Amino acid sequence: MKLSQIGELSLLDKIRKRFRTRARGLILGIGDDAAVVVPDGSTLVTTDMMVEGVHFDFSWTTPFQLGFKLISVNISDIYAMGGKPQFVLLNFAAHGSCTLQFFTNFFDGIEHALDTYGVSLIGGDVSASDRLMLSVTAIGSADAVVRRKGARIGDRIYVTGTLGDAACGLELLKKLNRTVDLKKGGCYGLPLRWRTAAPLMRRHLMPLARDSAAVRAHATAMIDVSDGLLIDLGRLCRESGVGARVRIPDIPLSDELKQAASVLGLSAVGLALSGGEDYELLFTASPKRKIDANCIGEIARSGIVVMDDAGRRINIAKKGYQHFAVQG
Amino acid sequence: MKLSQIGELSLLDKIRKRFRTRARGLILGIGDDAAVVVPDGSTLVTTDMMVEGVHFDFSWTTPFQLGFKLISVNISDIYAMGGKPQFVLLNFAAHGSCTLQFFTNFFDGIEHALDTYGVSLIGGDVSASDRLMLSVTAIGSADAVVRRKGARIGDRIYVTGTLGDAACGLELLKKLNRTVDLKKGGCYGLPLRWRTAAPLMRRHLMPLARDSAAVRAHATAMIDVSDGLLIDLGRLCRESGVGARVRIPDIPLSDELKQAASVLGLSAVGLALSGGEDYELLFTASPKRKIDANCIGEIARSGIVVMDDAGRRINIAKKGYQHFAVQG
Repeated sequence: MKLSQIGELSLLDKIRKRFRTRARGLILGIGDDAAVVVPDGSTLVTTDMMVEGVHFDFSWTTPFQLGFKLISVNISDIYAMGGKPQFVLLNFAAHGSCTLQFFTNFFDGIEHALDTYGVSLIGGDVSASDRLMLSVTAIGSADAVVRRKGARIGDRIYVTGTLGDAACGLELLKKLNRTVDLKKGGCYGLPLRWRTAAPLMRRHLMPLARDSAAVRAHATAMIDVSDGLLIDLGRLCRESGVGARVRIPDIPLSDELKQAASVLGLSAVGLALSGGEDYELLFTASPKRKIDANCIGEIARSGIVVMDDAGRRINIAKKGYQHFAVQG
Repeated sequence: MKLSQIGELSLLDKIRKRFRTRARGLILGIGDDAAVVVPDGSTLVTTDMMVEGVHFDFSWTTPFQLGFKLISVNISDIYAMGGKPQFVLLNFAAHGSCTLQFFTNFFDGIEHALDTYGVSLIGGDVSASDRLMLSVTAIGSADAVVRRKGARIGDRIYVTGTLGDAACGLELLKKLNRTVDLKKGGCYGLPLRWRTAAPLMRRHLMPLARDSAAVRAHATAMIDVSDGLLIDLGRLCRESGVGARVRIPDIPLSDELKQAASVLGLSAVGLALSGGEDYELLFTASPKRKIDANCIGEIARSGIVVMDDAGRRINIAKKGYQHFAVQG
């Protein structure tokens, strides 16, 4: 069945019934002109858009995976401010020939993400469009906000988890050029074992936003790694008015990334420095603090310098994803 | 100059510099992972999307007008809840061949709307896309929220301003099939005088959201007229679990609409009942209250009944705009 056979009002009803919620702080959810919340502490608000053919490709993305990722990307921004996510609003615009099956699978992915992060869908809109376009607004609360600004010279630079996995997963998916069932696995003719390839593809398809609860009390500045380590570190440094020294041997790389990069003939370090969409946290903290994350370098007076094993400076073009990228 | 020659980061910088603000309640605006606000009272949140070719047509819409309208549409939802708008977040996705001139004019319209409503832009995103897609999130506060639910049998039904003007303006623009300069005027070969046509076209191109401050204390239920009187009244009644009687002679029609409809061979009443995008307020109040708006009927037990001058029931298909509309 196609959306054009169902109509906007029925679609809104479906969403409304499914995401009826009694979340704390929520006075009024989906179904009126606006949602009403009673916030505690400071309120964080962030919004992001995902466009078919730009942010995702149905050659290798299922609607379920897309729904999950859309929520994760926005939740990641709330975590990156030291916040606790609470609510999301979702705009869904699709072609009339889009099937109800697609719509349902997409919202299955949304629901899985809402459950994962403990947040509620409280509003949004559905609309016609020639391509699929999605936008999400996420709302959270924070007792103490951690900004991009705040890093001090001498602070250590940390990242959670490992970097480069999502970019490598995307390379694998581009090669496959088909969707994969991450739960079931299967034989996809990859030059890698499933247990090596699957975590990488999962990092691209269904990234899990990293909760900052364990580190936010120590962080002097924080950002999530969405466009690539160098780009995002550059943003943090620019906002803080400082520079950075990063040691390549200290950048956390997963075994899966090392294996896959070697088989694919790619540089694991290159993917970790410039690959986007890892949705890990990049933050700075005083060297006096004991931090449960990987220290990759220190904040310096100016410039972003990357050093190899021998402490030599490496000349690296500050790549990473940029819309309307100026090719230089 | 094209956006593809500028790059996302420079565009974000332009927006950031332009919309730097020190609004009350705003802790942190554009430039971090999320905006931070300290809300007073209940917080209202609403989001809407506008897609090229679906919600607007550049054959007759200038980027300035589009920017203004995008904000108005969202502010209208905050007013319709009895709220005071405070902040907006904006996602802008466009093709790389989009010009800087377009981008600037669009944000001129955004800025004009922000000034008009006294709100601040505090976040958002820019992204590539094959067509122009926009989404806005608006945030407001309300001491007492007015919902769609709450109308009681015997309440009177009111609308602010006049209805049908925006739909008639759209008909004029479709005939013209070109953009108009609403300030300057000009000779566009319309079968109407400029002073008749201009207010109608303005209502479509640059609608002004109606502030509910004067009526919200009296309203038992409220909605904004975005998809057409019958559709929106139907929503209010459904939420309130009631019906309505509407008297056609009491529906407020502008002189401009009457003249233009007659020249175009359209029904002014039909446009007022089913035309969308007027962004007036539709609300109910006790007959004991003195209300400064047009009373168009009463709340009844069930059904939506429309009556002519002689009190006869008129059979009217409940038209109005619906995405993925099921043609019946």
